[in-house]
Amino acid sequence: MLQSSTKDTAILLLHCPDKQGILAAVTEFININKGNIIYLDQHVDFVEKEFFMRVEWEIEGFLIPQEKISEYFYTLLGKKYGMNFRLYFNANKPRMAIFVSKMSHCLFDLLSRYAANDWDVEIPLIISNHPDMEHVASKFDIPYYYFPITKETKQEQEAAEIALLKEHKIEFVVLARYMQVLTAEFIAQYPQNIINIHHSFLPAFVGAKPYHAAYERGVKIIGATSHYVTSELDAGPIIEQEVAKISHKDTVEMLIHKGQDLEKIVLSRGVEKHLERKVLVYKNKTIVFS
Amino acid sequence: MLQSSTKDTAILLLHCPDKQGILAAVTEFININKGNIIYLDQHVDFVEKEFFMRVEWEIEGFLIPQEKISEYFYTLLGKKYGMNFRLYFNANKPRMAIFVSKMSHCLFDLLSRYAANDWDVEIPLIISNHPDMEHVASKFDIPYYYFPITKETKQEQEAAEIALLKEHKIEFVVLARYMQVLTAEFIAQYPQNIINIHHSFLPAFVGAKPYHAAYERGVKIIGATSHYVTSELDAGPIIEQEVAKISHKDTVEMLIHKGQDLEKIVLSRGVEKHLERKVLVYKNKTIVFS
Amino acid sequence: MLQSSTKDTAILLLHCPDKQGILAAVTEFININKGNIIYLDQHVDFVEKEFFMRVEWEIEGFLIPQEKISEYFYTLLGKKYGMNFRLYFNANKPRMAIFVSKMSHCLFDLLSRYAANDWDVEIPLIISNHPDMEHVASKFDIPYYYFPITKETKQEQEAAEIALLKEHKIEFVVLARYMQVLTAEFIAQYPQNIINIHHSFLPAFVGAKPYHAAYERGVKIIGATSHYVTSELDAGPIIEQEVAKISHKDTVEMLIHKGQDLEKIVLSRGVEKHLERKVLVYKNKTIVFS
Amino acid sequence: MLQSSTKDTAILLLHCPDKQGILAAVTEFININKGNIIYLDQHVDFVEKEFFMRVEWEIEGFLIPQEKISEYFYTLLGKKYGMNFRLYFNANKPRMAIFVSKMSHCLFDLLSRYAANDWDVEIPLIISNHPDMEHVASKFDIPYYYFPITKETKQEQEAAEIALLKEHKIEFVVLARYMQVLTAEFIAQYPQNIINIHHSFLPAFVGAKPYHAAYERGVKIIGATSHYVTSELDAGPIIEQEVAKISHKDTVEMLIHKGQDLEKIVLSRGVEKHLERKVLVYKNKTIVFS
Repeated sequence: MLQSSTKDTAILLLHCPDKQGILAAVTEFININKGNIIYLDQHVDFVEKEFFMRVEWEIEGFLIPQEKISEYFYTLLGKKYGMNFRLYFNANKPRMAIFVSKMSHCLFDLLSRYAANDWDVEIPLIISNHPDMEHVASKFDIPYYYFPITKETKQEQEAAEIALLKEHKIEFVVLARYMQVLTAEFIAQYPQNIINIHHSFLPAFVGAKPYHAAYERGVKIIGATSHYVTSELDAGPIIEQEVAKISHKDTVEMLIHKGQDLEKIVLSRGVEKHLERKVLVYKNKTIVFS
Repeated sequence: MLQSSTKDTAILLLHCPDKQGILAAVTEFININKGNIIYLDQHVDFVEKEFFMRVEWEIEGFLIPQEKISEYFYTLLGKKYGMNFRLYFNANKPRMAIFVSKMSHCLFDLLSRYAANDWDVEIPLIISNHPDMEHVASKFDIPYYYFPITKETKQEQEAAEIALLKEHKIEFVVLARYMQVLTAEFIAQYPQNIINIHHSFLPAFVGAKPYHAAYERGVKIIGATSHYVTSELDAGPIIEQEVAKISHKDTVEMLIHKGQDLEKIVLSRGVEKHLERKVLVYKNKTIVFS
Repeated sequence: MLQSSTKDTAILLLHCPDKQGILAAVTEFININKGNIIYLDQHVDFVEKEFFMRVEWEIEGFLIPQEKISEYFYTLLGKKYGMNFRLYFNANKPRMAIFVSKMSHCLFDLLSRYAANDWDVEIPLIISNHPDMEHVASKFDIPYYYFPITKETKQEQEAAEIALLKEHKIEFVVLARYMQVLTAEFIAQYPQNIINIHHSFLPAFVGAKPYHAAYERGVKIIGATSHYVTSELDAGPIIEQEVAKISHKDTVEMLIHKGQDLEKIVLSRGVEKHLERKVLVYKNKTIVFS
Repeated sequence: MLQSSTKDTAILLLHCPDKQGILAAVTEFININKGNIIYLDQHVDFVEKEFFMRVEWEIEGFLIPQEKISEYFYTLLGKKYGMNFRLYFNANKPRMAIFVSKMSHCLFDLLSRYAANDWDVEIPLIISNHPDMEHVASKFDIPYYYFPITKETKQEQEAAEIALLKEHKIEFVVLARYMQVLTAEFIAQYPQNIINIHHSFLPAFVGAKPYHAAYERGVKIIGATSHYVTSELDAGPIIEQEVAKISHKDTVEMLIHKGQDLEKIVLSRGVEKHLERKVLVYKNKTIVFS
């Protein structure tokens, strides 16, 4: 992945109530056990009095065996400070599924990065409620599963999709302009692990046809937002946003066209930050480390 | 003014149902009467089938006397094409009033451009519902009128303000972070001639405390919008918008602080476009010529 | 293509010394012959006293036969006004060749738009000085020609490339991070028809390794520039530019990575404007209609 | 100042070769002596192997007396780690001088923030090589010193200016479109304490008349850069940069006009970062904490 060491590393993402000495304690835990820190960033939210941190270190020569790090860390520090923490190893490639409907721009953008080995990720499958994008999947030799969805079949089709995701050990899901609202049951299977692209600068123009709404309102700027999906529509924690200037000359069709460049870049950036383990969610907002 | 000729010019802003030959007819009207065109821009809205145009010409040597141009233009072209048109002469400086409450950043920005002679405008007075900004007005030797407003006095105070504006022959009003909603009666006195700055990228965060709302929502971008005031709050035609990126590190106070730079620039740009007679309103949206 | 009519259209791009009545004359020429104008934009450079125009009209029912329009226009208007003009028909798909070296991001971006039928264009071949990108070409079933180039073979290889381009009736060439300087002889074959992407905001960081230079200089903004290739390196007319903010946290590798998103979007936008016949070159600068 | 505590704080800015445990040692030094940390940010340059840090803490109840902190810190940590560090107290308002020539936009922007008490700073004087801006200084009741400069008088006038600055105990100098190159001797008096605004996105268009050069080159983006002044013209460490899109419609006059908004904002942001003690210079580049 982009910034990772060529060596094997451990990545620790954590947050806890802010207290004196946490950062010192965490870095000492790594240093004392002979871990070579190659990334460290932290943030204190002085309003919430919460401490956030991301640290990455090379695990070659680290005194604690890899499979014991989590336990030791919890025992020695996590418990004491009331930490909410996650530990990752860059050698474990995350497995990601893409959901798509009829538009190819986001799908192509994700897959072209995948094909270029820009990302340390596996994409074992693509799921769609339409058959249209199969030709894209086949270009990249990725299995494409078509699950047509009606009001009546939605529940069972989603259950089948979840079974398929579990079977393929999917860690997180990317909605690449997937034009179906997921049920709360589906979302509950992948908390903070479903990334959506919404084609407006949220919270403006929630819901369907945001470009039409933007045109009607006469805004001078359009945008796109990548966010984690929660059970409330278009209201989950925002990861990335980007905008572009428009003018009275732009028709709805031109907004849709210009917006596609925003959408694909903003979605891919959101996915990349997630893959790099640089996103922490706290109270429906994100901390995105740089 | 910025782009105007050093010579005297006439500026014509018009729109009408799109028909064959309008632009040719308008330019011929000017050319045949020996006007030297120094600016011409047009726009066709193919959805609404409406034609929009701004043209500016030097009136020295123009065959039609200045005070007759409007009549001749209406008779020869305006009537025929069903035009909605306005004619301005750059020699007539528009007279503008500023309304302000307690914050100085927009006020200073407007007045510093005024003091630098960037704009062809007269600012004969500043009106406020608070006494706080008088020291700024006095720096620039502009009379400052303090109209305290309560629910009970609002109607009569607005009436007094309008009387004052009429007395000073004010053509348009700029709300430079004026934190009072104007009544529909007030607005009706200055249709498409009251410019407000709203401290968000509308339509997101309509109403009070948009930075607090932006912070709560966890957006990654904040913005500002200058727009004409209509009777519906924060829903008038948008003139200019600008945004800035923020991050999880920004507190509400930092958003407010960063937003001030957006607000003052976006308001001044909106005022400048209005002063240059480059804004046309059509169906609650603006055409802003460049 | 994006804005074109679903019907057949003619597109006229022209410039000439600014005189009274040109725009009226051109629109009258179309109107009188029963052409329905669906796009019109014009620009007057009051410094150079030059007039620029783009007009597009539906040719169904146009009184002048398609193959005679150019002759009639020249005879009736072009000659009189000293016009430099080009006439296109949207039914004739332009044929474009892509040159690439070892990086896939721009190539994927171009081809994904092509595969999505976003553009009215034919891409009959891809040429490279390296074999690396053949796998991308084959995904999209486009013939890939590998021309290894050394100082000794450059002249003959370029001659072979030109022969191939001519054979395929290529109208214009896109350099999608092609890391070989073309000779003046090659460029002379495709004047204003070779589009390059340079990975900096020109004129900063001309030449090789601009991200390294940007890192060394400590800039806070990086950029990308699409431009027509001329015989002077990185000095041709600029079509599009875009930038992104960076910080002290960005290493050279991160700049290269972030820059790729700029490069692919800026190149594709430049290609799109060219395809839409919206770019006019005048004195090493471009007029880009919106 | 913007983010500072309402209480008295100490601010420590430091860098040193990166070693294990520095951050822990510094925070422990503060914690153990009962300092309440309200800001902490750090950066490791893994290329240069250099560690950078900014930490701010409330000094009420801090066990080391204020005037001894620097000595203790050096003895206990600075020496050991080879630190380059600076210690500030927010109670000590920095004293800043403004140099200006004939344009008012940056000057007004700085002074309007000063008048609004946005910044914790004293501005005891304004120096100019022209008399034109005295009216602005007098609006804000700041003494204005006029030093006309010719090639012959430059050396002695600069000496007089420096004497005046020393007399007023000026800590740093802001060049608000001061159109005179300072001599190396002058610069040597205020290393990393002279902030200039250059009206281009450096390193493009170094030197005089950058807007004319931008117009000639036909760029689609203009910019502004605030940077510390060094003896090499326009080559000092960059603090802030901002850009704006332009088009073929913009004349040189319009570029100059649009650029002024960039210049004033970019200069004020640079000054603000400097005032907040958030800028570290290392090898002609800046670390700018957020």
